[in-house]
Amino acid sequence: MIKMTAAALSISLLMAGGNTLAQQGAMEKKMEMAGPVDRAKILAAPGVSGNFSTYKVRPDYYRLSAAERKGAAAQVLAVVEKHKAKIIVDAYLTRGFEAKSDYLLRIHSYDMAATQAFLVDFRATRFGMNSDVTENLVGITKGLNYITKDKSPDLNKGLSSATYAGDAPRYAFMIPVKKNADWWNLSDEQRLKEMETHTLPTLGNLVNVKRKLYHSTGLDDTDFITYFETADLGAFNSLMLALAKVPENKYHVRWGSPTVMGTIHSFENVVNMLSMGN
Amino acid sequence: MIKMTAAALSISLLMAGGNTLAQQGAMEKKMEMAGPVDRAKILAAPGVSGNFSTYKVRPDYYRLSAAERKGAAAQVLAVVEKHKAKIIVDAYLTRGFEAKSDYLLRIHSYDMAATQAFLVDFRATRFGMNSDVTENLVGITKGLNYITKDKSPDLNKGLSSATYAGDAPRYAFMIPVKKNADWWNLSDEQRLKEMETHTLPTLGNLVNVKRKLYHSTGLDDTDFITYFETADLGAFNSLMLALAKVPENKYHVRWGSPTVMGTIHSFENVVNMLSMGN
Amino acid sequence: MIKMTAAALSISLLMAGGNTLAQQGAMEKKMEMAGPVDRAKILAAPGVSGNFSTYKVRPDYYRLSAAERKGAAAQVLAVVEKHKAKIIVDAYLTRGFEAKSDYLLRIHSYDMAATQAFLVDFRATRFGMNSDVTENLVGITKGLNYITKDKSPDLNKGLSSATYAGDAPRYAFMIPVKKNADWWNLSDEQRLKEMETHTLPTLGNLVNVKRKLYHSTGLDDTDFITYFETADLGAFNSLMLALAKVPENKYHVRWGSPTVMGTIHSFENVVNMLSMGN
Amino acid sequence: MIKMTAAALSISLLMAGGNTLAQQGAMEKKMEMAGPVDRAKILAAPGVSGNFSTYKVRPDYYRLSAAERKGAAAQVLAVVEKHKAKIIVDAYLTRGFEAKSDYLLRIHSYDMAATQAFLVDFRATRFGMNSDVTENLVGITKGLNYITKDKSPDLNKGLSSATYAGDAPRYAFMIPVKKNADWWNLSDEQRLKEMETHTLPTLGNLVNVKRKLYHSTGLDDTDFITYFETADLGAFNSLMLALAKVPENKYHVRWGSPTVMGTIHSFENVVNMLSMGN
Amino acid sequence: MIKMTAAALSISLLMAGGNTLAQQGAMEKKMEMAGPVDRAKILAAPGVSGNFSTYKVRPDYYRLSAAERKGAAAQVLAVVEKHKAKIIVDAYLTRGFEAKSDYLLRIHSYDMAATQAFLVDFRATRFGMNSDVTENLVGITKGLNYITKDKSPDLNKGLSSATYAGDAPRYAFMIPVKKNADWWNLSDEQRLKEMETHTLPTLGNLVNVKRKLYHSTGLDDTDFITYFETADLGAFNSLMLALAKVPENKYHVRWGSPTVMGTIHSFENVVNMLSMGN
Repeated sequence: MIKMTAAALSISLLMAGGNTLAQQGAMEKKMEMAGPVDRAKILAAPGVSGNFSTYKVRPDYYRLSAAERKGAAAQVLAVVEKHKAKIIVDAYLTRGFEAKSDYLLRIHSYDMAATQAFLVDFRATRFGMNSDVTENLVGITKGLNYITKDKSPDLNKGLSSATYAGDAPRYAFMIPVKKNADWWNLSDEQRLKEMETHTLPTLGNLVNVKRKLYHSTGLDDTDFITYFETADLGAFNSLMLALAKVPENKYHVRWGSPTVMGTIHSFENVVNMLSMGN
Repeated sequence: MIKMTAAALSISLLMAGGNTLAQQGAMEKKMEMAGPVDRAKILAAPGVSGNFSTYKVRPDYYRLSAAERKGAAAQVLAVVEKHKAKIIVDAYLTRGFEAKSDYLLRIHSYDMAATQAFLVDFRATRFGMNSDVTENLVGITKGLNYITKDKSPDLNKGLSSATYAGDAPRYAFMIPVKKNADWWNLSDEQRLKEMETHTLPTLGNLVNVKRKLYHSTGLDDTDFITYFETADLGAFNSLMLALAKVPENKYHVRWGSPTVMGTIHSFENVVNMLSMGN
Repeated sequence: MIKMTAAALSISLLMAGGNTLAQQGAMEKKMEMAGPVDRAKILAAPGVSGNFSTYKVRPDYYRLSAAERKGAAAQVLAVVEKHKAKIIVDAYLTRGFEAKSDYLLRIHSYDMAATQAFLVDFRATRFGMNSDVTENLVGITKGLNYITKDKSPDLNKGLSSATYAGDAPRYAFMIPVKKNADWWNLSDEQRLKEMETHTLPTLGNLVNVKRKLYHSTGLDDTDFITYFETADLGAFNSLMLALAKVPENKYHVRWGSPTVMGTIHSFENVVNMLSMGN
Repeated sequence: MIKMTAAALSISLLMAGGNTLAQQGAMEKKMEMAGPVDRAKILAAPGVSGNFSTYKVRPDYYRLSAAERKGAAAQVLAVVEKHKAKIIVDAYLTRGFEAKSDYLLRIHSYDMAATQAFLVDFRATRFGMNSDVTENLVGITKGLNYITKDKSPDLNKGLSSATYAGDAPRYAFMIPVKKNADWWNLSDEQRLKEMETHTLPTLGNLVNVKRKLYHSTGLDDTDFITYFETADLGAFNSLMLALAKVPENKYHVRWGSPTVMGTIHSFENVVNMLSMGN
Repeated sequence: MIKMTAAALSISLLMAGGNTLAQQGAMEKKMEMAGPVDRAKILAAPGVSGNFSTYKVRPDYYRLSAAERKGAAAQVLAVVEKHKAKIIVDAYLTRGFEAKSDYLLRIHSYDMAATQAFLVDFRATRFGMNSDVTENLVGITKGLNYITKDKSPDLNKGLSSATYAGDAPRYAFMIPVKKNADWWNLSDEQRLKEMETHTLPTLGNLVNVKRKLYHSTGLDDTDFITYFETADLGAFNSLMLALAKVPENKYHVRWGSPTVMGTIHSFENVVNMLSMGN
């Protein structure tokens, strides 16, 4: 049996006090209320909620007249407009790459419930009503955990200086990652070491591939959602091979499943491309 | 071969006599018959049956006229009213967070068959008839097993004194947990030790996250149903990370699958929000 | 290479001669042909075929008029009547407990093909035609394998004397069990020892829980179908926890998946309860 | 790095020359072209293609008039007649035993493409058009691999002399088997030894159970398709238990999944039994 | 913590510079713009995108009039014609071999987005609109990784000299391969050794079986897509058994799942064969 002193209890409670992610997010949220969400800012901020969902257009949609389908995009854009003070949405065409989806949505907000409100409204449009959601993952953004200025200065510098220098990305990938209990039971130092080994061989690919990370432990059946953009599929394949070849990979119980690949388009174009047909 | 004495047989039979959970539940049940179920009481009592079910609204529902859908909530509330002496029901909106469901119901009663009777009636309403059940888990409540006053006094005190002090919760989570044969074959002392190691790092998060536990071994394909409410997704993520980092995690064969996340609403609002559309 | 003598071959062939299960069943079958199946007798006999199937009522069923649905039970009962000389059928309501089914059927006969003939006829009724079968497991009954008078006299006595003494059971459970290759490669003595360790802690629960076992190796993707009835869910949960805590559990590759829980009703009532709705 | 001599390369190429299975099959095929396929001959020949497929009748089928359904069998038989010079088809009723199918087809031909041509035509009949294929496994027949006259003379003699002596079989089983990499990485001698240990305890059951084996490595997601016929389910269960108790079982990654059980009928009867209903 | 010098960072960045796969592909692409894609050239080039997708024809398709179905192939061919400067498409009939598909498409292009554009147009035809995509895997071609002239000269020579000498292939197979973390954490030398052991026993089958390899790590939930053509199913089975028997097989976490087998036809014929029916 563990004998615990009052002191140990205090430390434990103190640690909880350090969790100000939500407060931070709430503060940012208030600052944004006046106008549309600031894209650059929300993509860089911690405490932001990220929501990834994939959809398949139901066969019934193509029984609607071409005219009815033509109006679908306008309805969708009206819903985006209605929610623009709280969320930003990115759309991707996955048809032709994925069996389980035709398109992918990525939504950022300072409040997960605001994202939900948008999606409920979206599903009430003609296009949304004719879409089956086939995957939905949620996560939150955080500052760097391991490769920080303090813990790993050289690699941190490498990460900061390795800027994307490729053509405008045409492809995006959403890949969930879940780690096993052995990983989480490593000490912080051991995990830092593995993350350094993970980071080194990938630095070279940061000129060709953009990355963003979302944390999901407990929020969903994944620990992380990793998101990538690239114009160069060969470079992206090389990056993923480099990540397969480090010991960290041995702790993965989920890496992909699904790997979702899409091309980057405006939401309007995605809806229009999926509304074609006799 | 095991030679067993009459004495051993008696002990074994005696242990069965100690199982008065059902009797206790039955007693409480009678006390409740007069009026509506006492919410505070049933949420604290042992021997209570908990029933979690998730649903997806069938596409056909949106072919009904808006008027027909408008009346759906009233029908549902009438069924709730009819069963109010036996069950209480909590509803959650999961659309926008989950691919496999649009809403989640949590039902408490002193008699699992009473819960079933309610759900059979609910499924006969227009809204229920247009809902596909996508998950259904059942469990019963018990008193604390491990972190009791006797076995682990300090932690028990920590648990008692750590009261929720956050904003009114907006989010709820339903997460099943199943343990492997190695866990169940540990001695009681070993499992107590692991549960203490599990409890210590989580005390700090009890100010931000409410918890409730249901026991399901043999009743369903899970050992436990864990239920959480919070206003702070970052704090909840921290709590779940703390639970991932203790050795107990190595004994999990199911933790999530699904992790169901929803926002807390009245049943009426859930039905209405899912009944929108041209 | 194994050199095998004619003697070894004979022994092997001799063992096959000992398999008279089917002959036994066939004999019993003839004795039953005159009138309806004797329920008490068939539930106790070896060589009986058990068939468990679960169903979900198709949404289309609720588009039929209430009158058409009202007549469904009579049609079903007529089919039961037609086959009563060969089969007995038990029905359970699972809606509200299970996501994958609305009801469960358990059928006994002395001839598996007779069970199939009944089910083919049942599926041709209006109710059967509107039901999707979601699980179907078959097995046969045998005498005790391990805890016999000879091999384990004390436990055998314990099993015989531990009679059900609870209220009339309201709940039934169907739980498949499959064991791994390591289990089957143990010697008979080793498996007997594990079964004794399994039996001892469960004796006490036999006053609250009834049990029946079906053997399915090769007949289906499970080794056993375990069936339980109880009025006391807490006692049943305790029994299953006791079974989780013995080493035998380490050899399980399937225990549940699904665990099917239902309430015990007449077939007529099950059909009627699932035929309600505007 | 492996240094390889020209000689090693030649040996490797030589081995390929020994693969005359297809040529053999082609030769047999030409001999058959004149009349219907010779059943006894094709069931004994190596180089024959076996095709197993299971189907579920779509609910829509029962919306057709009884008259339309009555004509279904004739249409199916016409297709069988058209292809009788190239294929033979066996049909089994699985409804009542299997959740995922209503019937099973087993087709033999000397040319897999001829089997496909038949199935494409069958799926264009009213019955085939209303059937969803739920499983499809293909394999080819070969001579004995392990228990040959040379390698294992006594067991080979046992296999040859153990003739089926039961009643006309009423039940058939289709059970896929896949082995893990450890099995395939054993030496030929080690695998022979395991197959001998596998064969010995099963000899006794050959009087009650007929067996046939198809090889599928690379052709499908299984290594073998095992097929059985019996009149005695107890004897079949004993046979399968004997196979579970030998070390070979430890190398199985798939044994069943699905286990498909059916009763043996003419194709006409299977269609007619599944075409009943108001 | 890893101390990293500026030099290490440079090396890492330099390696990225070596990744010119996409540039190479882009260059080839421009050269092709004038006329139809050169089949021989694209099938031999590195940096080419390969896209495999399987489809099941929806039952509704057969409710269209025979006349409407008759026109389906012409519509499909018009779409192929429209995209012929950017893609080539191969079609395979899988009905009768696979439960999850009726046909398979393999598409090559120098630009994955061009493949997507074709598939989006294809799905807008009557036939495409009535097809459900059931699997979709993408990969890119590369030069030989292991068995190169430098690293393994003898085997490389063996590979070059072993030309296909069989009849015109009638069958094609698409088999995904995924390797575990242990494989990817081997040194390059260790993986080369395993690939040599893998290559030697397969050389002999290259006279009967054609092979092509696509790399998918990170692009999809597989590491490789292996594609085969043969006229001799027995030879193909022998090749796959040889690959099962080398140690490399122990590193596979996916090999098949699905194994897709089809017969080789023109796209027109595939559409026509699947458009038959009263």
